[in-house]
Amino acid sequence: MTTSFDDSEYADRLARVRARMMEADLETLITVDPSNMAWLTGYDGWSFYVHQAVIVPASGDPVWWGRPMDAPGAVMTTWLSKDRVHSYPDEYVMSPHRHAMDDLAGLLADYGWARGRIGVEMENYYYSARAHSVLDAAVPGTLADATGLVNRCRAVKSPAELARMRRAARIVERMHVRIREIMRPGLRGNELAAEITRTALMGAEDEGGAFGGDYPAIVPLIPAGREASAAHLTWSDRPYPADVGIFFEIAGCYRRYHAPLCRTAWLGRKPDNVRRAEATMREAVAAGIDAARAGAVAGDVARAFHGSLRRSGIERLGRCGYPIGLSYPPDWGERTFSIREEDETVLEPDMTFHFMGGLWQADWGLEITESLRVRRDGPAECLANVPQEIFECG
Amino acid sequence: MTTSFDDSEYADRLARVRARMMEADLETLITVDPSNMAWLTGYDGWSFYVHQAVIVPASGDPVWWGRPMDAPGAVMTTWLSKDRVHSYPDEYVMSPHRHAMDDLAGLLADYGWARGRIGVEMENYYYSARAHSVLDAAVPGTLADATGLVNRCRAVKSPAELARMRRAARIVERMHVRIREIMRPGLRGNELAAEITRTALMGAEDEGGAFGGDYPAIVPLIPAGREASAAHLTWSDRPYPADVGIFFEIAGCYRRYHAPLCRTAWLGRKPDNVRRAEATMREAVAAGIDAARAGAVAGDVARAFHGSLRRSGIERLGRCGYPIGLSYPPDWGERTFSIREEDETVLEPDMTFHFMGGLWQADWGLEITESLRVRRDGPAECLANVPQEIFECG
Repeated sequence: MTTSFDDSEYADRLARVRARMMEADLETLITVDPSNMAWLTGYDGWSFYVHQAVIVPASGDPVWWGRPMDAPGAVMTTWLSKDRVHSYPDEYVMSPHRHAMDDLAGLLADYGWARGRIGVEMENYYYSARAHSVLDAAVPGTLADATGLVNRCRAVKSPAELARMRRAARIVERMHVRIREIMRPGLRGNELAAEITRTALMGAEDEGGAFGGDYPAIVPLIPAGREASAAHLTWSDRPYPADVGIFFEIAGCYRRYHAPLCRTAWLGRKPDNVRRAEATMREAVAAGIDAARAGAVAGDVARAFHGSLRRSGIERLGRCGYPIGLSYPPDWGERTFSIREEDETVLEPDMTFHFMGGLWQADWGLEITESLRVRRDGPAECLANVPQEIFECG
Repeated sequence: MTTSFDDSEYADRLARVRARMMEADLETLITVDPSNMAWLTGYDGWSFYVHQAVIVPASGDPVWWGRPMDAPGAVMTTWLSKDRVHSYPDEYVMSPHRHAMDDLAGLLADYGWARGRIGVEMENYYYSARAHSVLDAAVPGTLADATGLVNRCRAVKSPAELARMRRAARIVERMHVRIREIMRPGLRGNELAAEITRTALMGAEDEGGAFGGDYPAIVPLIPAGREASAAHLTWSDRPYPADVGIFFEIAGCYRRYHAPLCRTAWLGRKPDNVRRAEATMREAVAAGIDAARAGAVAGDVARAFHGSLRRSGIERLGRCGYPIGLSYPPDWGERTFSIREEDETVLEPDMTFHFMGGLWQADWGLEITESLRVRRDGPAECLANVPQEIFECG
């Protein structure tokens, strides 16, 4: 098992992106999504809070472009040669007078890539409305929306990518073991977050030896009681009360690859209605996993899940999952298809997604989720092995 | 000392934003910056990876708008009444067919806020190019760039905000104490990150008692040796070698308020050139702090710092600081003014900024930084008390 990507894997990724570019009639592609930049070149650094991009021309190697102080990091972490790493002057950083996209337009012109149809990621955290308007005014070519073009190429995972995700799964298993060891009424939210995060970064081991953890793209979401009726509240330093539910929305991360997995606990003896909801949810999650097969569509998984819930009298609609893999904050999803009834994306072997069995009630919340890999035959594989039960503590 | 914000503080913030809106001839303001949303309403949750906003009308209370599963969190964390919390249907989340901004346009129309000049944050991670283009097409009014309008109102900190920042400073002090305890050659990057983060979340104590830590908006940046010549590489699980430099770019965070503070260590006996650079940098940092006075401009601080370095033969230009306070990923800066020579922003009492004494050489990097508060008289106050020396370990 190797978790490193060799040259041929990067060449294959680039070829797949170029095929999509041709389909979309794009001569050049500018990707600013840090996950896409990393997937294409290996670039890894917490520099996405300033403007940066990887530019994929119709032929020849891609170019990394960013802030001068990050260029050495690009040389160190990517397979690109030094002459394909460019930076803009530091006075462009967060300046009210200048915009880095003006510099990018000049670079495109220098390379002869400023004409024709140029793909940009219109729906991305790292491509602001201003960035688009400046770039659009500065290039003679036409900017075309290429949101998700690279992301969709990332859906089917290579063996080396799966090896990273399996390590992330080993990590999230340990995180849940640690939670079971320490969770009790009176524990403070920040203390729980500290232990979960420490465990995530300490890492785990497998047949290849011990390995460390990377930072997950989202912090632990660990709300209890009424706060668990809201999906995305972060912790406080108040002690957890007794006789409430708590869910743990967390992921293991190994070299930027994620294995999210959520579980729920009850701080005391779980009431009958919680037991019933647990049984219902576990059955529905099993139905979803069973439907997650190569050749099925994403909507089939949602329908199996919702149908199972409906048979127990629970009407739940909406999104119940999303593709996962390589990611950077603020989200560990790939932001392409969704596990929702209307989604007709065909599932292929080695696609991976986070299947979210979640139910948020007025005064508690329940999450039982799995990171799944689509198999060639049969139902999807759960990447991690963590008991699904709502465990009682305290 | 209280770290809570009472109603009058929120009313004052809103009044200040409205004054700026009038100056900018804006009838309505849409802010998507999570820090601005929190500062105006108290909203706190890791939900910024989907579209959400706070809308400030010319009169009356603001409105929170976001995803349905986050609306309960808005009711719980903001001072807004329930009828000012609105959400869009979940099928708008990451859909290729629908955009949440279409829903927002409808909401604006319902309130009668869809006409006139509407401010939007063109340069923000959470306002994508697509969001702007959809909203622009869907409202009859004119969208005008209001980037930084709210952020600039946040520059001068209230006593309650400073109380939070002082708690963040207590936390970052503990983080550096912990680093000194454990740092040695052979320690792995992920182990160091685990201990730093655990310490950050466990919190600290002051005269008001013990308090927990919140998540900093950036993960620890702790590169050693050649990797420290790149500013923003994150950790690996390799052991640190001996006889190299390492810097620790970290922040304490208390209830979303940050106190960043970076230090440098040498894994062994520091060579003479490092000692010289250390002395030079400490002198330059002192010169910068001395220049950071009410009535001076941001550029004065940069000139004092660069001038001091220049007298030791070091030519360094560019940005050497930025305002800090309330923040969310991916950046703990306020993204308004910069400490750079051309910046003419006048420093006012209780402005706070991270003054970055940094130097990135070919094979090592040095950071000695302080979180500063501008005083009414005299040089700025260092919020935290951490020895500046490059300490030797191992």
